[in-house]
Amino acid sequence: MGRTSTARERLLDAACDLLRTRGYADVGVAEICARADVRKGSFYHFFESKQALTLEVVDAHWHRQRADWLATLRAPDRPALARLEELFRSLTGIQRATQEEHGAVSGCLLANLALELPAQEQPVRDRLAAVFAEEVDLVQAALAEAAAEGTVRAGAADRDTARAAVAQMEGMVLFAKVTDDPAVLDGLWPQVSRLFGVRGN
Amino acid sequence: MGRTSTARERLLDAACDLLRTRGYADVGVAEICARADVRKGSFYHFFESKQALTLEVVDAHWHRQRADWLATLRAPDRPALARLEELFRSLTGIQRATQEEHGAVSGCLLANLALELPAQEQPVRDRLAAVFAEEVDLVQAALAEAAAEGTVRAGAADRDTARAAVAQMEGMVLFAKVTDDPAVLDGLWPQVSRLFGVRGN
Repeated sequence: MGRTSTARERLLDAACDLLRTRGYADVGVAEICARADVRKGSFYHFFESKQALTLEVVDAHWHRQRADWLATLRAPDRPALARLEELFRSLTGIQRATQEEHGAVSGCLLANLALELPAQEQPVRDRLAAVFAEEVDLVQAALAEAAAEGTVRAGAADRDTARAAVAQMEGMVLFAKVTDDPAVLDGLWPQVSRLFGVRGN
Repeated sequence: MGRTSTARERLLDAACDLLRTRGYADVGVAEICARADVRKGSFYHFFESKQALTLEVVDAHWHRQRADWLATLRAPDRPALARLEELFRSLTGIQRATQEEHGAVSGCLLANLALELPAQEQPVRDRLAAVFAEEVDLVQAALAEAAAEGTVRAGAADRDTARAAVAQMEGMVLFAKVTDDPAVLDGLWPQVSRLFGVRGN
């Protein structure tokens, strides 16, 4: 039993690394198995297909990322604006860590998959769309608190503003990836705070 | 001669379509040749590799897109703010056209490549980084005119603001692709105009 559950986790971890750094089409089941040290026959015991594995990788990745976002966005005894600032400012360090681990800025796994996957991979795209919607929800909830605290413009707590902030985040991560420079992300928060109408902007 | 140059153009057109809708890793030279109706031996007469072809596709795509951007951003006898608004509002129609042509919103070829390509494809990533920098230049130049005309906040004509606007554009195109809904892009200009500090926001 112990060995079985380890094999499944190793496959998920290997797929997460390979999908993030190399993309979906470039990575096959054989390579995932080799990286995870699991026989190919065992793969299909755990997952029906590469697509099924990818859906689980997306869920596992978002499960971890969501926990980080919630720890930041719901930290007690801090103003909502400070929590939002921490979320957006944390991106530089996160992408610097991917650069150190993989030899180059690898960007956001979810966005990488979203732009690579062709229309035929509809189930994965639907799952990614749901995750991005959840990201927007989390930002919008913190914005509503900040609006109640009077630190952002009245009306900033709407869905369009939260979506624009997440879009800007994904676009800036793209620029950090294509230039292999995490410091590009230092420019994110000052611009997002303008969008929120933070006082002083 | 006529036939030769047609074959080269057909290869470029076929590669552009396939890269945009299916991605880089998923598309091979054989398939590009089949789509272009060109023999594989001829391919290597024109291009050294798939990477070399991709660099030319990026250049050809940006050559056309840049001409469209310049026609919009340098239209005579219009306020700079109206020209910027037209650029950002045009995205909905552009992505609707990709949906009609390819059966699904195919997004921005340059961003798709930027997020898919692994670090090993450095020459293409460098070229993409240069193209994104040119996009930021063009937006920044129009913003400088708008600032001089007094229609955006003083200071909006800096590089960080222009980069944030292009980042937001790429992020919103990602959302349009993943939801297969071009109308998502209708929300782009109202949020970008906040970033620019357009009067009334």
